[in-house]
Amino acid sequence: MKTRSTNLRVKLPVFVVVIEVIFVALYAAFVTYDEHTDARFQTNKTNPMDNAMYKDYPFFIDIQVMIFLGFGCLLAFFRLYGFGGMVFNFLMATFAIQWAILVQGYFQFCHDGKIHLGVINLINAEFACAVVLISFGAVLGKTSPLQLLVMALLEVPVFAVTEWAVLKYLRINDSGGSILIHLFACYFGLGVTFVLYRPHLNKNHAKENTTYQSDILSVMGTLFLWVFWPSFNSALTLKGDDQHRAILHTFIGLSASTLTAFALSVMLNKNGKITMADVQNVTLAGGVTVGASVDMMISPAAAYALGMMGCTACMLGYKYLSPFLARHLKIQDQCGIHNLHGLTGLISCIAGICAILMANEEVYGPSLYDLFANRAPVKGDPKLKELQMLIPSLQPGLGRTAKEQALFQVAAMFSTIGASALGGILTGFVLKLPYLASPSDDFCFDDEPFFDVPPPLKPINTIIAEDSTA
Amino acid sequence: MKTRSTNLRVKLPVFVVVIEVIFVALYAAFVTYDEHTDARFQTNKTNPMDNAMYKDYPFFIDIQVMIFLGFGCLLAFFRLYGFGGMVFNFLMATFAIQWAILVQGYFQFCHDGKIHLGVINLINAEFACAVVLISFGAVLGKTSPLQLLVMALLEVPVFAVTEWAVLKYLRINDSGGSILIHLFACYFGLGVTFVLYRPHLNKNHAKENTTYQSDILSVMGTLFLWVFWPSFNSALTLKGDDQHRAILHTFIGLSASTLTAFALSVMLNKNGKITMADVQNVTLAGGVTVGASVDMMISPAAAYALGMMGCTACMLGYKYLSPFLARHLKIQDQCGIHNLHGLTGLISCIAGICAILMANEEVYGPSLYDLFANRAPVKGDPKLKELQMLIPSLQPGLGRTAKEQALFQVAAMFSTIGASALGGILTGFVLKLPYLASPSDDFCFDDEPFFDVPPPLKPINTIIAEDSTA
Amino acid sequence: MKTRSTNLRVKLPVFVVVIEVIFVALYAAFVTYDEHTDARFQTNKTNPMDNAMYKDYPFFIDIQVMIFLGFGCLLAFFRLYGFGGMVFNFLMATFAIQWAILVQGYFQFCHDGKIHLGVINLINAEFACAVVLISFGAVLGKTSPLQLLVMALLEVPVFAVTEWAVLKYLRINDSGGSILIHLFACYFGLGVTFVLYRPHLNKNHAKENTTYQSDILSVMGTLFLWVFWPSFNSALTLKGDDQHRAILHTFIGLSASTLTAFALSVMLNKNGKITMADVQNVTLAGGVTVGASVDMMISPAAAYALGMMGCTACMLGYKYLSPFLARHLKIQDQCGIHNLHGLTGLISCIAGICAILMANEEVYGPSLYDLFANRAPVKGDPKLKELQMLIPSLQPGLGRTAKEQALFQVAAMFSTIGASALGGILTGFVLKLPYLASPSDDFCFDDEPFFDVPPPLKPINTIIAEDSTA
Repeated sequence: MKTRSTNLRVKLPVFVVVIEVIFVALYAAFVTYDEHTDARFQTNKTNPMDNAMYKDYPFFIDIQVMIFLGFGCLLAFFRLYGFGGMVFNFLMATFAIQWAILVQGYFQFCHDGKIHLGVINLINAEFACAVVLISFGAVLGKTSPLQLLVMALLEVPVFAVTEWAVLKYLRINDSGGSILIHLFACYFGLGVTFVLYRPHLNKNHAKENTTYQSDILSVMGTLFLWVFWPSFNSALTLKGDDQHRAILHTFIGLSASTLTAFALSVMLNKNGKITMADVQNVTLAGGVTVGASVDMMISPAAAYALGMMGCTACMLGYKYLSPFLARHLKIQDQCGIHNLHGLTGLISCIAGICAILMANEEVYGPSLYDLFANRAPVKGDPKLKELQMLIPSLQPGLGRTAKEQALFQVAAMFSTIGASALGGILTGFVLKLPYLASPSDDFCFDDEPFFDVPPPLKPINTIIAEDSTA
Repeated sequence: MKTRSTNLRVKLPVFVVVIEVIFVALYAAFVTYDEHTDARFQTNKTNPMDNAMYKDYPFFIDIQVMIFLGFGCLLAFFRLYGFGGMVFNFLMATFAIQWAILVQGYFQFCHDGKIHLGVINLINAEFACAVVLISFGAVLGKTSPLQLLVMALLEVPVFAVTEWAVLKYLRINDSGGSILIHLFACYFGLGVTFVLYRPHLNKNHAKENTTYQSDILSVMGTLFLWVFWPSFNSALTLKGDDQHRAILHTFIGLSASTLTAFALSVMLNKNGKITMADVQNVTLAGGVTVGASVDMMISPAAAYALGMMGCTACMLGYKYLSPFLARHLKIQDQCGIHNLHGLTGLISCIAGICAILMANEEVYGPSLYDLFANRAPVKGDPKLKELQMLIPSLQPGLGRTAKEQALFQVAAMFSTIGASALGGILTGFVLKLPYLASPSDDFCFDDEPFFDVPPPLKPINTIIAEDSTA
Repeated sequence: MKTRSTNLRVKLPVFVVVIEVIFVALYAAFVTYDEHTDARFQTNKTNPMDNAMYKDYPFFIDIQVMIFLGFGCLLAFFRLYGFGGMVFNFLMATFAIQWAILVQGYFQFCHDGKIHLGVINLINAEFACAVVLISFGAVLGKTSPLQLLVMALLEVPVFAVTEWAVLKYLRINDSGGSILIHLFACYFGLGVTFVLYRPHLNKNHAKENTTYQSDILSVMGTLFLWVFWPSFNSALTLKGDDQHRAILHTFIGLSASTLTAFALSVMLNKNGKITMADVQNVTLAGGVTVGASVDMMISPAAAYALGMMGCTACMLGYKYLSPFLARHLKIQDQCGIHNLHGLTGLISCIAGICAILMANEEVYGPSLYDLFANRAPVKGDPKLKELQMLIPSLQPGLGRTAKEQALFQVAAMFSTIGASALGGILTGFVLKLPYLASPSDDFCFDDEPFFDVPPPLKPINTIIAEDSTA
């Protein structure tokens, strides 16, 4: 393994250029503007300020910050792998978004043989990108950029197909993406890292540690994610009160999980001190936990409780489950995504199911059938007409009961976990191809193989001395 | 003092868990949705895009960045207390916001026995949180996280009561929060630090200094605050031209104070160089100074002049007043909040009073009585009817004259200073309880007692050598 | 040169205070509110939420982040010049904006003898500021803050006159500012650096290098610019679908150029590794390249191709052209602005001209004459009436053909390059005045002459030892 070359001088450019030529051809052949982007569709009756962009763009920009700065800084926590964390995140994110625009476009935004593009597609593509970046957390520091690109190349279509099938056939409620984003990303990543198992890394690795500076940088990433998370969870809800609730619940959930994280971090530390890795990760658990019920009338107290529960599960996972998985199940989950996205995602699903079972007209009024669109009466049902007297815009639904909807959520949960784990394992086997320049164990968590790293800092006095002699 | 334990393993978790249980109970019992968040209130006539969230959320998100990233980075300037500055800020902010939602909710958003919640409450709670974080600046590096939580626990209600009393009984104009936010926070913090006086810290402390990296990080915090400050000062103004003016004035004031800060920094430095602490703090003075008159028709030139004046007062305060306060009045104001928030806040109040005295219908048109709502004629006054012909939405006011309004501003200023100083002093005595794990003098400005700090950096060559032998 | 004093204790404060007194007088005499900021203009029929601020402010705030955090971090890449990069950027930006408000105000927003101010002026001023900061990149590390202020003082009016003349007389399409912002800034900066040529800097300079930390900081700056660039390119387009397209194209262009940059960086590196300077700069090329045609119906594939082309030109420029310019033409372009803004700007102009030549009613519908306002028929033309049946708001234009418009674009390109290069050269001569405290060659790329730099880090153990003996 140690003698395998990590030189990318030919491989990476060839891979990227081939991909780019294919992409530009596909964009030219199939991608066009949607009705809010195309000049021809604007008539005299179109009010420019009603353009859909004005509703979506603020959320898009917030998610941009999360993807590029939030994930980028968060993943730069290793002492010698700061470039890798931040820059590979940048590389994968841009690649995954371009690719997701095409694949999601094919499944979700395609009519008349064309993919129709607007800012809404970019938001969806950034969600697909978030999936890839979460999975990246499982293999951080153990993969070459070429492996990461191949992983994104394979993960995006598996995700897009799963997303499309779940949304089209199971038709679930999951505004915050707890099932489709967090569970998918988690089990895909675990599948990959299971196949890429490196026994030597279970011992202490000399480079698997942080510095004062890298810890601070990583906390900044956490703060970027924390601050903008309400936009992430509410970007794709219905507009109006639904989106308003999603913002509130996310904020309250995050806030509760942050406070809990500090308490548990101190309690579980043998010296009663705060562990920076907990501040960087566990504080965010609440954002995931409220996800599946984020736009429902769960009450602010429930959002608070969900934040506390998600945080507790996440913290215990880091303390006890991750070491167990690494030692006994060959799952080396580098950033602990199973704790931050898996366990919390499962809690979120269960909470979502409870919220669905308890939802009724008394609490939601007639807009129950807007939010739970599948529970709206079917076409022809006299109840539909009654409701349409109250809400003329109401579309006929599937007439599902609360219990039926709950069962579909369960089905979505399991099929997502299954599809993602399988996809991850298969992807892992592809990533083992020797061509892909995987770093040796010694050079894990190290920028050296892939970056021109500046030499270590000489003391400033030396430099000044050199100058004065020059 | 040196032997007192700073181990938080039991104390902090117990405190936090008790608080959280109480909070979740209070949220469950008293907190519900407001009319823009509750699904039941949405009828067919509600346009989702008219939801109040769309007006408030962009400002909320900008303030989020200021609170978590702005303050967080700014306070991380000490060489060995970067974790403390950034992470304790994170901890206190989340705690203060949760608590403020309840307390402010009780005083300002409570009807039918319930606190009604929307994004607007979050903005108000973040203002309360800003108050706590400014006060934190006075005791930075000298307090345990438990002390900080207790301080937030006590400061938020004192602030909320003061805010409520001033807004309800004195009814002042203070859109940028110069009186209620900056003066309150400043004198509360000074009160606390006065009681926590540590004579040894007046000598040079070995850890009370910065590094190249920490200075840069702190400037980033300044830039986050600078960039988003217009949103802070305009978040709670009337919509439309008032908010527009608030943005303009804040930008111009900040811009003028920044330029002035560079000039004064170089002038007052004995080598004619720029002092980084000035760049980090004094540049921001203009944002406070325009606060009290930020939505009035003061003219862009006046905003410019206010920026210059605030900056000058702030700079002279850092140079001459802070050392005096520390030596002779036992007020060790760690970040110099008396310069950045106190002196500038006082100037802002005076400027606000001048602007109020000069306000007339000639300059404002009839919307004078919108902006200065207390000057609107009382119910039954024939002048009210005349005005309502021009502005049908105008509410009856108190018929105050400009002079009366000015006197109420003065009263608000003094009562705020009095309430906050008293509250701060009492809080200081509570913080002296031995239970609260205050660090010894030697461990001030040091992360060591409260964080698992990564060991200092070994040279990279050593690591590589270790690896190759492994 | 070595003996010249860099002490600014008198010079800088005098310069700044004189400027500020003049500015405050000019603001007082000539600057007032526009119709969206002035309370008198608000009548009962004004809907506060229709205030122009709500359309402009989100874009303004995004550009703020780019100017202060994006440029600030990006320019802080030198190991010993981090303060200089970030803080001089802050200083120049605030100064340039204040000054641009006056100068652009005089040329573009002046009527009734007054400059009328709203957020839209701030956006325009931030564009002028971006021009100054791009030019700054050419002389980074080789100039005193006083020189930089003088440069901004001279560049802003030259830019404002050029902008005004081009927009008023040539009337071009350039929403992303490829001609007016990027080409102007580039050739002005090259003009300045040509005159300030320092032969000794062509040899390796001991301080002209980066550290691990400074490289990461600089990538963060890149990410800030990357994330918000769509707002930069779309801030001044027509509202509605035009702005929507500008966002899409910028995102796609950036995304394509980022992926290409990684491929080329690895390919051109002799060890097949990623060069951080490429990640910091070349990834952004696509944002410039799509600029001139950013709001046109060029198709997403064309935006993708433009990103790839711009990135390739930029990368080859860094590799081959910059060293050539420095050695043979005395143009020491410190940050390679000729690659990132010049070459890409030229490609963008050519692409814009192609897009203009291909624009027709079939693709754009009648809104062709909105976007290409100069192609609208002249007053009295019967075709105008026909079009006004479809678009009543359509203004009479100049009746230009596509070819005529293309020729005007060419004229604008050459006159902008000419004006900026000449302005830059003349400014360079002014900057050579000995009064302006230029640093000696040895102290280039060094904060030492202008900042109180904290002493180098002593090992933490030493400090703890000192404490325990204290």
